Amino acid sequence: MNTVEETKTEFLAFLKKKAALEEALNLVYWDIRTKIPKKGTEGRAEVIGVLSEQIFEMEVSEEMAAFIATLAPHRAELDEITAKSLDESNRVYALNKKIPAKEFRAYSKLVAEAENVWGEARAENDFAKFAPYLEEIVTMKRKFVEYWGYEQNKYDTLLDQYEPGMTVEVLDSVFLKLRDAIMTLRGKMAREGTAPNPDLLRVTMPREKQQTFSEQILTKMGFDFDAGRLDDTIHPFAIGLNLHDVRITTRYDEDNFKMAVFGIIHEGGHAIYEQNFNPKLAGTPLKEGASMGIHESQSLFYEIILGSSFAFWKSNYKNLTKLEPKFAQVPLEDFYRAANLSESSLVRIEADILTYPLHIMIRYELEKALMNGELEVADLKEAWNNKYEEYLGIRPEKDSEGILQDIHWAGGDFGYFPSYALGLIYAAQFFHTMERELPELDQIIESDDYTPIREWLTEHIHQYGKLKKPLEILKDTTGEGLNPDYLIDLLNKRYEFVYNLKS
Amino acid sequence: MNTVEETKTEFLAFLKKKAALEEALNLVYWDIRTKIPKKGTEGRAEVIGVLSEQIFEMEVSEEMAAFIATLAPHRAELDEITAKSLDESNRVYALNKKIPAKEFRAYSKLVAEAENVWGEARAENDFAKFAPYLEEIVTMKRKFVEYWGYEQNKYDTLLDQYEPGMTVEVLDSVFLKLRDAIMTLRGKMAREGTAPNPDLLRVTMPREKQQTFSEQILTKMGFDFDAGRLDDTIHPFAIGLNLHDVRITTRYDEDNFKMAVFGIIHEGGHAIYEQNFNPKLAGTPLKEGASMGIHESQSLFYEIILGSSFAFWKSNYKNLTKLEPKFAQVPLEDFYRAANLSESSLVRIEADILTYPLHIMIRYELEKALMNGELEVADLKEAWNNKYEEYLGIRPEKDSEGILQDIHWAGGDFGYFPSYALGLIYAAQFFHTMERELPELDQIIESDDYTPIREWLTEHIHQYGKLKKPLEILKDTTGEGLNPDYLIDLLNKRYEFVYNLKS
Repeated sequence: MNTVEETKTEFLAFLKKKAALEEALNLVYWDIRTKIPKKGTEGRAEVIGVLSEQIFEMEVSEEMAAFIATLAPHRAELDEITAKSLDESNRVYALNKKIPAKEFRAYSKLVAEAENVWGEARAENDFAKFAPYLEEIVTMKRKFVEYWGYEQNKYDTLLDQYEPGMTVEVLDSVFLKLRDAIMTLRGKMAREGTAPNPDLLRVTMPREKQQTFSEQILTKMGFDFDAGRLDDTIHPFAIGLNLHDVRITTRYDEDNFKMAVFGIIHEGGHAIYEQNFNPKLAGTPLKEGASMGIHESQSLFYEIILGSSFAFWKSNYKNLTKLEPKFAQVPLEDFYRAANLSESSLVRIEADILTYPLHIMIRYELEKALMNGELEVADLKEAWNNKYEEYLGIRPEKDSEGILQDIHWAGGDFGYFPSYALGLIYAAQFFHTMERELPELDQIIESDDYTPIREWLTEHIHQYGKLKKPLEILKDTTGEGLNPDYLIDLLNKRYEFVYNLKS
Repeated sequence: MNTVEETKTEFLAFLKKKAALEEALNLVYWDIRTKIPKKGTEGRAEVIGVLSEQIFEMEVSEEMAAFIATLAPHRAELDEITAKSLDESNRVYALNKKIPAKEFRAYSKLVAEAENVWGEARAENDFAKFAPYLEEIVTMKRKFVEYWGYEQNKYDTLLDQYEPGMTVEVLDSVFLKLRDAIMTLRGKMAREGTAPNPDLLRVTMPREKQQTFSEQILTKMGFDFDAGRLDDTIHPFAIGLNLHDVRITTRYDEDNFKMAVFGIIHEGGHAIYEQNFNPKLAGTPLKEGASMGIHESQSLFYEIILGSSFAFWKSNYKNLTKLEPKFAQVPLEDFYRAANLSESSLVRIEADILTYPLHIMIRYELEKALMNGELEVADLKEAWNNKYEEYLGIRPEKDSEGILQDIHWAGGDFGYFPSYALGLIYAAQFFHTMERELPELDQIIESDDYTPIREWLTEHIHQYGKLKKPLEILKDTTGEGLNPDYLIDLLNKRYEFVYNLKS
């Protein structure tokens, strides 16, 4: 028999091998979305298949089961990284093994097909084409929840997969409060506010200048170009290959500099998170963000809290104007207001930050009802359209701009959407604590070096990777649980300024 | 028991999986030599290790042994691609399995260390530092040859690994003839010739223009940019990920346009070979060049036979002059002569094409003597220096420009060097046959479209990948075995023109 110490060494080597395959797979993903020649993608699909399968097979292998069986009784003797790597491996093992293999295979096949059909249905504006697949996915997902088990609410089980510890009970009350605040603010803006003039931003800025400007900001943020890259793509993303190789991507519109600049700040936030994991987490399943929500909190912190603040633009607008003198005709305040215009829109990914949470709440409420059997796919489109009318005052006329706009459900990813809004709430909570702990924060944001901000985030959040649960990070950092007040406060102040409201 | 048909299906699926891992590994290699951020390489080494090991383990696995055992007796019933995939798998299996596992591991470790030490020794100009490693490598390699077995000459076994079917008997006579011809020609050039003026090429050409010019030529050659890329690197190479994704790389020197332009033509020749494999070879071990020598014949065909011919520059010099008007002051003939200057040099990779084969012959003769026990590492440096004096009339003063210039021996790659010279001989033989079969060849080379040339190469060489042996391709294409006469004829004609000799 092996000693615990020997098994631990073998376990860590096993995880390291899995991490290497994940790194290879991530490189394939990066390449396929940035560099691959047009005709190369078909053959590359086979590579993705083989690597994904190998990783999955390791996760549910008998070898993994044996590691868990041997080490779990000795968890208390293990160092923290090994113990939590064991927990995470066990979580993933159980998640997959509780589903009968046959049903899991059928499900995998179904979502692969469904994603294709979704793409076609979306192009054809025809939800009816996609509905039968979605129905089957919902049926299977409901069944999976029974296999996985649940306590208070069936949807909790799904939430927990993306945001460990999050529950419907917490989210219901937090989202209600946030929704009321946003609706009230939007009402006031409509009645009493002066909408900024978006035409002020219609300045053509060459791609190279946009890139130079964005790279200046990335550098100020603390993005390490020796441990990362910036490339072009169609749908921007950030991807960490290893701690010292985290890549971001963007696309440019010469007539809309906001797209690339804010996109790069956002992806930069994700990347800086991964560049600052504790190096000891390399090769373990903890070398990832704590959760979807915490990851999003980092990108949104930089994009929305920092990058959309007035203080931020005091110095950066000078740099922008230097690069693109056409902006010099627009005073900073007018520029800033124009950049923060808020409008109802049908498409989530095009929404501004004030309306964005409403898009998420709509999806949250529909998912929750679907998973608890209170809503059926047959009634989903009507429910979707009604919610948009209720929350945003507009009603989709085309499925492609309505219920078919997101791929998530086609992939079976129920429980994922709330993370986007949670990220924003977390970010505002972190910022509030940061303000308390860094008294010079305003000056830092107005300066050309955000190092103290990056260091604060690394100290409290980045370094831990998946070593802490999201709510643990939140509590340890801010002393509180989930609390939307700071976000509400920030939104009120920002839009009072942008819309010239009396507070 | 499985039927032969079932085993065949499983065997092909097994090979396809191995090919997918190879594709992933090649992407990692490409990335590490082109795009990876500086700090990312350390972590990536683990990925290379894991993927290489998986591929190797598949090649020598019990599963592979079982496929071979089951299918070999039924080889005659298999389709050609499966049968030859089986042969190739069997060859690789035997190659590795004939060496006792313990010795193989020791050897792998030794060469990994030796490559590092070689790098240090080279930087320090100190062969003595590297010599003990080389001695051990030679000892092990000699032992391996005993394990592998040999017939006429021990070195044949090593030659066969890079150039199947090639023997010392053939090479000795071919190289002797070629050497005599080159020595005679060089003597005549020295006595009666007028050396061209290399200063005519000292034109500064911006990087972008060099790239535009090279891409024009690649397009004429038939390189498919939808199935490939061109990127920057330090040590240029071509790498095929799959049939529709073959990437080349180059580096630019603004004061020496020849480096990038001829480098790109060379790598383009490699890439066009791989872009035109029969698609049915995808996923099998036959989706590779027939041999090192045949692969080199394709790059050298484009670089040396086509790209360094006077006819080629008739049209391309116009394009070059259009992009870089500074060339307009130099008449085409003078430009062409200057580009084909030949001089003795110490470093193989900087040699012109007339002296290049001599560099190869020196290595060939030393390797052959080492492997047959007629020379020891203790005497190698002296032997190297003497050969350079004898063949090229110059003697290295520094080990880094002498015996330490190539990495091959540190990697244990004895038998590899001859492929470079074979590639040149093959290319000249192919060209001679092409001249006979394409009567308009001169006009094609002078034109802006080399499609008939690419098609001829695809028909006779490209499509077969590893489906045919190198000498089979040579015989089927030219009707002859290895014959240096066509290369000798070409060199004589070219240098008579360049050096204004009376023929």
